Amino acid sequence: MSDTTWDVEHLTESTRASVPMAAQTQVEVIEAERGRVVLRMPIEGNGNHIGTMYAGALFALAEFPGGTLFSTTFDVSRYYPIVKGVEIQFRRFAATDISVEASMTEEQVAAVAAAADEHGKANYDLELALTDTDGNVVAISTNHYQLRAHGI
Amino acid sequence: MSDTTWDVEHLTESTRASVPMAAQTQVEVIEAERGRVVLRMPIEGNGNHIGTMYAGALFALAEFPGGTLFSTTFDVSRYYPIVKGVEIQFRRFAATDISVEASMTEEQVAAVAAAADEHGKANYDLELALTDTDGNVVAISTNHYQLRAHGI
Repeated sequence: MSDTTWDVEHLTESTRASVPMAAQTQVEVIEAERGRVVLRMPIEGNGNHIGTMYAGALFALAEFPGGTLFSTTFDVSRYYPIVKGVEIQFRRFAATDISVEASMTEEQVAAVAAAADEHGKANYDLELALTDTDGNVVAISTNHYQLRAHGI
Repeated sequence: MSDTTWDVEHLTESTRASVPMAAQTQVEVIEAERGRVVLRMPIEGNGNHIGTMYAGALFALAEFPGGTLFSTTFDVSRYYPIVKGVEIQFRRFAATDISVEASMTEEQVAAVAAAADEHGKANYDLELALTDTDGNVVAISTNHYQLRAHGI
Protein backbone atom coordinates (compact mmCIF):
# COMPACT_ATOMS: atom_id res chain seq x y z
CA MET A 1 0.00 0.00 0.00
CA SER A 2 3.03 2.24 -0.37
CA ASP A 3 2.77 5.74 -1.64
CA THR A 4 5.83 7.00 0.18
CA THR A 5 9.21 5.45 0.73
CA TRP A 6 10.78 6.43 4.02
CA ASP A 7 14.40 7.13 4.79
CA VAL A 8 15.36 4.00 6.72
CA GLU A 9 18.54 5.57 8.09
CA HIS A 10 16.54 8.42 9.56
CA LEU A 11 13.99 6.02 11.04
CA THR A 12 16.79 3.93 12.54
CA GLU A 13 18.44 6.99 14.05
CA SER A 14 15.23 8.40 15.49
CA THR A 15 14.31 5.03 17.02
CA ARG A 16 17.73 4.69 18.63
CA ALA A 17 17.62 8.29 19.85
CA SER A 18 14.25 7.90 21.56
CA VAL A 19 14.63 4.44 23.14
CA PRO A 20 18.01 3.52 24.70
CA MET A 21 17.29 -0.19 24.22
CA ALA A 22 17.09 0.40 20.46
CA ALA A 23 20.57 1.92 20.52
CA GLN A 24 21.89 -0.83 22.79
CA THR A 25 20.55 -3.63 20.60
CA GLN A 26 21.56 -1.81 17.38
CA VAL A 27 18.19 -2.61 15.83
CA GLU A 28 17.96 -1.31 12.27
CA VAL A 29 15.05 -0.33 10.07
CA ILE A 30 15.90 -1.86 6.69
CA GLU A 31 12.66 -1.30 4.74
CA ALA A 32 9.92 1.21 5.40
CA GLU A 33 6.89 2.34 3.49
CA ARG A 34 3.33 3.23 4.34
CA GLY A 35 1.76 0.07 5.78
CA ARG A 36 4.92 -2.03 5.89
CA VAL A 37 8.27 -2.07 7.71
CA VAL A 38 11.14 -4.53 8.07
CA LEU A 39 13.57 -4.40 10.98
CA ARG A 40 16.70 -6.39 11.73
CA MET A 41 18.69 -7.02 14.89
CA PRO A 42 22.29 -8.27 14.93
CA ILE A 43 23.14 -11.37 16.97
CA GLU A 44 26.37 -9.57 17.92
CA GLY A 45 25.89 -7.99 21.33
CA ASN A 46 22.41 -9.49 21.83
CA GLY A 47 23.31 -12.99 22.97
CA ASN A 48 23.02 -15.00 26.12
CA HIS A 49 25.22 -17.48 27.95
CA ILE A 50 24.68 -20.16 25.27
CA GLY A 51 25.45 -17.89 22.31
CA THR A 52 21.94 -17.48 20.92
CA MET A 53 19.90 -14.28 20.86
CA TYR A 54 18.49 -13.50 24.30
CA ALA A 55 14.69 -13.74 24.64
CA GLY A 56 14.53 -10.12 25.76
CA ALA A 57 16.31 -8.97 22.61
CA LEU A 58 13.90 -11.02 20.49
CA PHE A 59 11.01 -9.42 22.35
CA ALA A 60 12.38 -5.95 21.65
CA LEU A 61 12.78 -6.82 17.97
CA ALA A 62 9.15 -7.96 17.95
CA GLU A 63 7.94 -4.76 19.63
CA PHE A 64 9.95 -2.03 17.88
CA PRO A 65 8.07 -2.45 14.54
CA GLY A 66 4.89 -1.28 16.25
CA GLY A 67 6.35 2.20 16.61
CA THR A 68 8.00 2.20 13.21
CA LEU A 69 4.85 1.07 11.42
CA PHE A 70 2.85 3.69 13.28
CA SER A 71 5.30 6.38 12.14
CA THR A 72 5.12 5.43 8.47
CA THR A 73 1.39 4.75 8.36
CA PHE A 74 -0.65 6.95 10.69
CA ASP A 75 -0.89 10.70 11.09
CA VAL A 76 1.51 11.27 13.97
CA SER A 77 0.07 14.73 14.58
CA ARG A 78 -3.34 13.21 15.34
CA TYR A 79 -2.59 9.85 16.99
CA TYR A 80 -0.11 8.01 19.20
CA PRO A 81 0.18 4.27 19.92
CA ILE A 82 0.25 2.41 23.23
CA VAL A 83 1.36 -1.23 23.55
CA LYS A 84 -1.18 -3.06 25.73
CA GLY A 85 0.35 -6.52 25.71
CA VAL A 86 2.34 -9.09 23.78
CA GLU A 87 2.24 -12.86 23.50
CA ILE A 88 5.51 -14.23 22.21
CA GLN A 89 6.50 -17.83 21.54
CA PHE A 90 10.11 -18.83 21.10
CA ARG A 91 10.19 -21.59 18.48
CA ARG A 92 13.89 -22.31 17.97
CA PHE A 93 17.27 -20.96 18.98
CA ALA A 94 18.16 -17.74 17.17
CA ALA A 95 21.79 -18.09 16.11
CA THR A 96 22.03 -15.42 13.39
CA ASP A 97 20.91 -11.83 12.84
CA ILE A 98 17.11 -11.82 13.06
CA SER A 99 14.55 -9.92 10.95
CA VAL A 100 10.88 -9.13 11.30
CA GLU A 101 8.29 -7.65 8.97
CA ALA A 102 5.15 -5.85 10.11
CA SER A 103 2.33 -4.69 7.89
CA MET A 104 -1.24 -3.47 7.82
CA THR A 105 -3.56 -3.18 4.85
CA GLU A 106 -5.03 0.18 3.81
CA GLU A 107 -8.43 -1.14 4.95
CA GLN A 108 -7.11 -2.00 8.41
CA VAL A 109 -5.45 1.39 8.77
CA ALA A 110 -8.60 3.23 7.72
CA ALA A 111 -10.77 1.22 10.10
CA VAL A 112 -8.47 1.78 13.09
CA ALA A 113 -8.14 5.51 12.38
CA ALA A 114 -11.90 5.87 11.97
CA ALA A 115 -12.53 4.09 15.26
CA ALA A 116 -9.96 6.30 17.03
CA ASP A 117 -11.63 9.38 15.55
CA GLU A 118 -15.01 8.25 16.85
CA HIS A 119 -14.06 6.84 20.26
CA GLY A 120 -10.72 8.51 21.00
CA LYS A 121 -8.99 5.13 20.92
CA ALA A 122 -9.00 1.91 18.93
CA ASN A 123 -7.33 -1.45 19.48
CA TYR A 124 -5.39 -3.27 16.78
CA ASP A 125 -3.07 -6.26 16.67
CA LEU A 126 0.08 -7.10 14.75
CA GLU A 127 0.94 -10.75 14.10
CA LEU A 128 4.67 -11.10 13.53
CA ALA A 129 7.20 -13.78 12.67
CA LEU A 130 10.88 -13.35 13.51
CA THR A 131 13.15 -15.14 11.06
CA ASP A 132 16.81 -15.99 10.93
CA THR A 133 19.02 -15.55 7.87
CA ASP A 134 18.07 -19.04 6.63
CA GLY A 135 14.38 -18.12 6.72
CA ASN A 136 13.60 -20.19 9.81
CA VAL A 137 10.95 -18.75 12.10
CA VAL A 138 12.61 -18.40 15.51
CA ALA A 139 9.72 -16.68 17.27
CA ILE A 140 6.17 -15.50 16.65
CA SER A 141 4.32 -12.77 18.45
CA THR A 142 0.92 -11.17 18.69
CA ASN A 143 1.25 -7.52 19.71
CA HIS A 144 -1.78 -5.69 21.05
CA TYR A 145 -1.72 -1.95 20.43
CA GLN A 146 -4.12 0.87 21.03
CA LEU A 147 -4.21 3.89 18.77
CA ARG A 148 -5.14 7.00 20.72
CA ALA A 149 -6.20 10.35 19.36
CA HIS A 150 -4.33 13.32 20.80
CA GLY A 151 -6.37 15.61 23.00
CA ILE A 152 -9.43 13.41 23.38
CA MET B 1 11.23 -22.45 51.43
CA SER B 2 14.67 -20.98 51.99
CA ASP B 3 17.49 -23.02 53.37
CA THR B 4 20.22 -20.98 51.73
CA THR B 5 20.65 -17.26 51.27
CA TRP B 6 22.45 -16.37 48.08
CA ASP B 7 24.93 -13.59 47.47
CA VAL B 8 22.82 -11.11 45.51
CA GLU B 9 25.85 -9.16 44.32
CA HIS B 10 27.35 -12.29 42.83
CA LEU B 11 24.05 -13.22 41.18
CA THR B 12 23.74 -9.71 39.75
CA GLU B 13 27.28 -9.81 38.40
CA SER B 14 26.93 -13.25 36.86
CA THR B 15 23.63 -12.29 35.19
CA ARG B 16 25.15 -9.13 33.74
CA ALA B 17 28.25 -11.02 32.61
CA SER B 18 26.29 -13.69 30.74
CA VAL B 19 23.58 -11.55 29.08
CA PRO B 20 24.56 -8.13 27.65
CA MET B 21 21.00 -6.87 28.01
CA ALA B 22 21.23 -7.46 31.77
CA ALA B 23 24.31 -5.23 31.90
CA GLN B 24 22.72 -2.63 29.61
CA THR B 25 19.53 -2.41 31.68
CA GLN B 26 21.46 -2.57 34.99
CA VAL B 27 18.99 -5.09 36.36
CA GLU B 28 19.84 -6.04 39.93
CA VAL B 29 19.09 -9.11 42.04
CA ILE B 30 18.06 -7.67 45.40
CA GLU B 31 16.81 -10.79 47.21
CA ALA B 32 17.59 -14.41 46.50
CA GLU B 33 16.94 -17.64 48.31
CA ARG B 34 15.93 -21.14 47.33
CA GLY B 35 12.48 -20.83 45.74
CA ARG B 36 12.29 -17.04 45.70
CA VAL B 37 14.04 -14.11 44.04
CA VAL B 38 13.40 -10.37 43.73
CA LEU B 39 14.89 -8.28 40.93
CA ARG B 40 14.79 -4.57 40.29
CA MET B 41 15.40 -2.44 37.20
CA PRO B 42 16.16 1.30 37.29
CA ILE B 43 14.03 3.66 35.23
CA GLU B 44 17.26 5.54 34.47
CA GLY B 45 18.52 4.42 31.07
CA ASN B 46 15.48 2.20 30.37
CA GLY B 47 12.99 4.77 29.19
CA ASN B 48 11.24 5.65 25.98
CA HIS B 49 10.31 8.85 24.20
CA ILE B 50 7.63 9.68 26.78
CA GLY B 51 9.82 9.10 29.83
CA THR B 52 8.32 5.84 31.06
CA MET B 53 10.04 2.46 31.12
CA TYR B 54 10.16 0.93 27.64
CA ALA B 55 8.04 -2.21 27.12
CA GLY B 56 11.13 -4.17 26.09
CA ALA B 57 12.87 -3.28 29.34
CA LEU B 58 9.79 -4.37 31.30
CA PHE B 59 9.78 -7.63 29.35
CA ALA B 60 13.45 -8.23 30.20
CA LEU B 61 12.73 -7.53 33.87
CA ALA B 62 9.90 -10.09 33.69
CA GLU B 63 12.12 -12.72 32.05
CA PHE B 64 15.41 -12.41 33.96
CA PRO B 65 13.94 -13.90 37.19
CA GLY B 66 13.42 -17.19 35.37
CA GLY B 67 17.16 -17.72 35.18
CA THR B 68 17.83 -16.36 38.65
CA LEU B 69 15.18 -18.54 40.26
CA PHE B 70 16.50 -21.56 38.39
CA SER B 71 20.01 -20.85 39.72
CA THR B 72 18.94 -20.61 43.34
CA THR B 73 16.46 -23.48 43.26
CA PHE B 74 17.42 -26.29 40.91
CA ASP B 75 20.54 -28.40 40.60
CA VAL B 76 22.37 -26.55 37.85
CA SER B 77 24.64 -29.54 37.26
CA ARG B 78 21.64 -31.68 36.30
CA TYR B 79 19.22 -29.27 34.60
CA TYR B 80 18.98 -26.15 32.46
CA PRO B 81 15.94 -23.97 31.67
CA ILE B 82 14.52 -22.88 28.30
CA VAL B 83 11.97 -20.08 27.93
CA LYS B 84 9.21 -21.26 25.59
CA GLY B 85 7.03 -18.19 25.58
CA VAL B 86 5.73 -15.23 27.53
CA GLU B 87 2.42 -13.40 27.72
CA ILE B 88 2.85 -9.92 29.11
CA GLN B 89 0.22 -7.25 29.73
CA PHE B 90 1.15 -3.64 30.32
CA ARG B 91 -1.29 -2.23 32.86
CA ARG B 92 -0.06 1.30 33.51
CA PHE B 93 2.88 3.55 32.71
CA ALA B 94 6.02 2.63 34.62
CA ALA B 95 7.51 5.90 35.84
CA THR B 96 9.81 4.67 38.64
CA ASP B 97 12.30 1.87 39.23
CA ILE B 98 10.39 -1.41 38.84
CA SER B 99 10.63 -4.62 40.88
CA VAL B 100 9.47 -8.18 40.37
CA GLU B 101 9.31 -11.21 42.64
CA ALA B 102 9.32 -14.80 41.39
CA SER B 103 8.78 -17.87 43.53
CA MET B 104 8.03 -21.57 43.46
CA THR B 105 6.95 -23.79 46.34
CA GLU B 106 9.04 -26.78 47.38
CA GLU B 107 6.25 -29.02 46.06
CA GLN B 108 6.33 -27.35 42.64
CA VAL B 109 10.11 -27.63 42.45
CA ALA B 110 10.03 -31.31 43.41
CA ALA B 111 7.32 -32.09 40.87
CA VAL B 112 9.11 -30.33 38.01
CA ALA B 113 12.45 -31.96 38.84
CA ALA B 114 10.83 -35.39 39.10
CA ALA B 115 9.13 -34.94 35.72
CA ALA B 116 12.41 -33.81 34.13
CA ASP B 117 14.15 -36.85 35.62
CA GLU B 118 11.52 -39.15 34.13
CA HIS B 119 10.94 -37.51 30.73
CA GLY B 120 14.11 -35.48 30.19
CA LYS B 121 12.07 -32.27 30.27
CA ALA B 122 9.20 -30.69 32.16
CA ASN B 123 7.19 -27.54 31.59
CA TYR B 124 6.49 -25.01 34.33
CA ASP B 125 5.09 -21.51 34.47
CA LEU B 126 5.87 -18.41 36.51
CA GLU B 127 3.15 -15.82 37.09
CA LEU B 128 4.71 -12.45 37.81
CA ALA B 129 3.65 -8.94 38.73
CA LEU B 130 5.93 -5.96 38.06
CA THR B 131 5.44 -3.17 40.57
CA ASP B 132 6.56 0.43 40.85
CA THR B 133 7.92 2.01 44.02
CA ASP B 134 4.39 2.94 45.13
CA GLY B 135 3.30 -0.71 44.88
CA ASN B 136 1.26 -0.23 41.71
CA VAL B 137 1.26 -3.21 39.34
CA VAL B 138 2.55 -1.86 36.01
CA ALA B 139 2.65 -5.18 34.16
CA ILE B 140 1.82 -8.84 34.67
CA SER B 141 3.34 -11.78 32.85
CA THR B 142 2.99 -15.51 32.50
CA ASN B 143 6.33 -17.06 31.59
CA HIS B 144 6.44 -20.58 30.15
CA TYR B 145 9.66 -22.44 30.88
CA GLN B 146 10.90 -25.93 30.26
CA LEU B 147 13.34 -27.60 32.60
CA ARG B 148 15.62 -29.92 30.68
CA ALA B 149 17.91 -32.58 32.08
CA HIS B 150 21.49 -32.43 30.80
CA GLY B 151 22.51 -35.29 28.56
CA ILE B 152 19.09 -36.77 27.95
